[in-house]
Amino acid sequence: MNEQEQALDAYIDAHRTEIIEELVRFCAQPSVSARGEGIAAMVTLASDALRARGLAVDVYETGGYPVIVGRSPAPQPHTLLLYNHYDVQPEDPMDAWLSPPFEPTLRDGRLYARGVMDDKGHIVCRLAAIDAVRAVYGDLPCEIKFVIEGEEEIGSPNLPAFVEKHRDILRADGCLWEFGDVDYDGASMNYLGFRGLLYVQFSVQTANLDAHSGIGGTIFPNAAWRLTWALTSLKDSSERVLIPGFYDDVVPPTPADLDALAQLPAVTERHRAAYGLRGMLNDMADGIDFQRAAIFSPSCTICGLTAGYQGPGAKTIMPAQATAKMDFRLVPNQDPADIFRKLRRHLDDAGFADVAVTVLGSEKPARTPVDDPFVQMVVEAARDVYGQPQRVVPMSGGSGPAHAFVEALEVPVVTAGVGYPGSQIHAPNENIRVDDLIKGVRHTARIIARFGAQSPQ
Amino acid sequence: MNEQEQALDAYIDAHRTEIIEELVRFCAQPSVSARGEGIAAMVTLASDALRARGLAVDVYETGGYPVIVGRSPAPQPHTLLLYNHYDVQPEDPMDAWLSPPFEPTLRDGRLYARGVMDDKGHIVCRLAAIDAVRAVYGDLPCEIKFVIEGEEEIGSPNLPAFVEKHRDILRADGCLWEFGDVDYDGASMNYLGFRGLLYVQFSVQTANLDAHSGIGGTIFPNAAWRLTWALTSLKDSSERVLIPGFYDDVVPPTPADLDALAQLPAVTERHRAAYGLRGMLNDMADGIDFQRAAIFSPSCTICGLTAGYQGPGAKTIMPAQATAKMDFRLVPNQDPADIFRKLRRHLDDAGFADVAVTVLGSEKPARTPVDDPFVQMVVEAARDVYGQPQRVVPMSGGSGPAHAFVEALEVPVVTAGVGYPGSQIHAPNENIRVDDLIKGVRHTARIIARFGAQSPQ
Repeated sequence: MNEQEQALDAYIDAHRTEIIEELVRFCAQPSVSARGEGIAAMVTLASDALRARGLAVDVYETGGYPVIVGRSPAPQPHTLLLYNHYDVQPEDPMDAWLSPPFEPTLRDGRLYARGVMDDKGHIVCRLAAIDAVRAVYGDLPCEIKFVIEGEEEIGSPNLPAFVEKHRDILRADGCLWEFGDVDYDGASMNYLGFRGLLYVQFSVQTANLDAHSGIGGTIFPNAAWRLTWALTSLKDSSERVLIPGFYDDVVPPTPADLDALAQLPAVTERHRAAYGLRGMLNDMADGIDFQRAAIFSPSCTICGLTAGYQGPGAKTIMPAQATAKMDFRLVPNQDPADIFRKLRRHLDDAGFADVAVTVLGSEKPARTPVDDPFVQMVVEAARDVYGQPQRVVPMSGGSGPAHAFVEALEVPVVTAGVGYPGSQIHAPNENIRVDDLIKGVRHTARIIARFGAQSPQ
Repeated sequence: MNEQEQALDAYIDAHRTEIIEELVRFCAQPSVSARGEGIAAMVTLASDALRARGLAVDVYETGGYPVIVGRSPAPQPHTLLLYNHYDVQPEDPMDAWLSPPFEPTLRDGRLYARGVMDDKGHIVCRLAAIDAVRAVYGDLPCEIKFVIEGEEEIGSPNLPAFVEKHRDILRADGCLWEFGDVDYDGASMNYLGFRGLLYVQFSVQTANLDAHSGIGGTIFPNAAWRLTWALTSLKDSSERVLIPGFYDDVVPPTPADLDALAQLPAVTERHRAAYGLRGMLNDMADGIDFQRAAIFSPSCTICGLTAGYQGPGAKTIMPAQATAKMDFRLVPNQDPADIFRKLRRHLDDAGFADVAVTVLGSEKPARTPVDDPFVQMVVEAARDVYGQPQRVVPMSGGSGPAHAFVEALEVPVVTAGVGYPGSQIHAPNENIRVDDLIKGVRHTARIIARFGAQSPQ
């Protein structure tokens, strides 16, 4: 470890309390994009934090929630783009939280709050890394472009057009993505790409009023049954998606992808313990097929079901309305618009023209090549922090608007961050380990420093 | 119309305001058995109302909510049993009510409140009829046994044992059931029996925590999918129930039943208008097949679905838990305990051992013969009130604990009451027309008077 990187670590250790305090401030501010709650206050808080690091801040209206862009003043030979989001998932079910979601709480070395990992922990990690680099190096050795959007959790509907429109402002040589974590062994993970997403809501309405089930049970249509049958027409219990043409554009993993997958550790027992899973899907066991299924298979997931009476005890009604929320995780080269057309056609052909489908989110899949030099630098920068280089995952199971950056800016996109397998993102009791936060700051500070120290391109 | 029945009508007309006021008092008292809300206060209110009519009241503990029995003092040659219930269905969805469910409100000749038809309107109707008969005849011409239970809306779990235990106290020659209504033509309906009921809750738990759908979508089991597939295994979209043996004990309607059905008026257009139905189930048209399906087919109805995220917008999770509520309406001689065993065995055999099933309600089907003299007296007593005798429906599509009375007391059970097709029972904006209430009182008063005037048996 060189002297300057030792100095980075010393600075970060000395400011551990301030880092946690800033993260607490970020998480105490609700910013739920699904409900449009707390957005303006969050934009102010994040913009002020960027300005405090000497970044020039512009807040761009997008038609949805604004995008914040903070840029370091002096042009430099290398430009690092930091993509983050200030919005968070809804906090329900509320009664499963051990401490209130917007009252960040430290317990057993963990900080609990909605958004503490996804994504406010990453914003604060990068701010702290910038602080450390500026303190040790006197100035930033590369140009920083910090992009923080507010619609990631609702599918980033306005980000692709924003990036396309502002490509000259956003141009960069490498991009650090909004999330990142360590695995069950404590190794930092680098996800080189993201599955796409099609998020839809199904709605069935068979009548204007719920009916007594004794009156209508055998003569009225039932919205909940219509929905149930329509959903079952989409996927069978062997997990095969039944929408005609769904798999047409799936590109199988390359031998290089499979090599990378083969190097990843076994994970089923750890997933089982972390989530309290009764078992893995269809009793899948560890191995290349499992690793491949986790990433290179498209999914069809029911995220929510609502119909009729949901309270305690019995109520004998036929629901007039029923809805379901569903996401499809898509792999290259599936296109969400194409999958939506196929879904609609399938429902019509299968006799479910009465099932309305609304798109709530849409993202294309995107990938970065394993052998990009930027990737290798970020992987290697982890060694002193985590005791080993990053583990490379050829594609994340999750999604994000990476396609907009990869396509419009032709920038390699990598991940490095503060989460761990118990972070429970999108679920109650979202949390990070404070030690992971500090390691994330050390790794990020090294990435900024080493990126700036490269020979000019 | 004889002089005394004219005097009954005059008395009832003169007391119209008091009748409505008593019904308002009954409906203003919540008594939701599904939540156990307001039971004790309701028992007091109903008991006091019976005592005010000179009935001796006993309140029996049952292990659940109490049964109230009010008996007229003097033994008489003929005994009329009045079966009612003081509990009501839950009021949700609250935001669909135009006036608060427990603040009875008169609008356009209708009284709106939870329970105003089902079943407090019937209790008050019978109290008012007793008042009229006592005023005109000086005393009750037959013995009255007024049974009011508190668990009808949760499946009367304790009533059969109660009736069996107290058969000597409850013995009667005829029974007026807890509900009744006019059809779209204004004809009073007499339902001679009831489908049985098996009400169950399905629960699936695949993990302790909801998971991010990008992490688990293709490798974790999804509770909502397990539930959806399990439900679909129960019934196909042609409405055929797929549980092996489900139809084994179904007794088809007799030629006499089919004759009665054939005399009933066409109803699909009226149902369509009343409920805002998009269409009838599988586009069924009026006719004997439709009438037969409405009553003599067993049903399999999803009453409610709950899983995962149900708020606005998108949340990308895999639900760890999912539940459904379902009722089966059973026809003679299906037995709910037998159907439950077949359901459980089917789920196990079909690979859904992970789907837990809990029984929330259970009632056997029961019927009364069309040619019983008591039936004919009640049918004929409607003529002067409604301009025509009652229309006889050989079995109601609904359910109730009639089996307990029919079996243990060997008493014929008939219906006559205050509802109409727009009463929206079990749904928001439950209501009755005040004119139907008054007609119901007139009809009931005649039934009491004529029943007492019969030759001793």
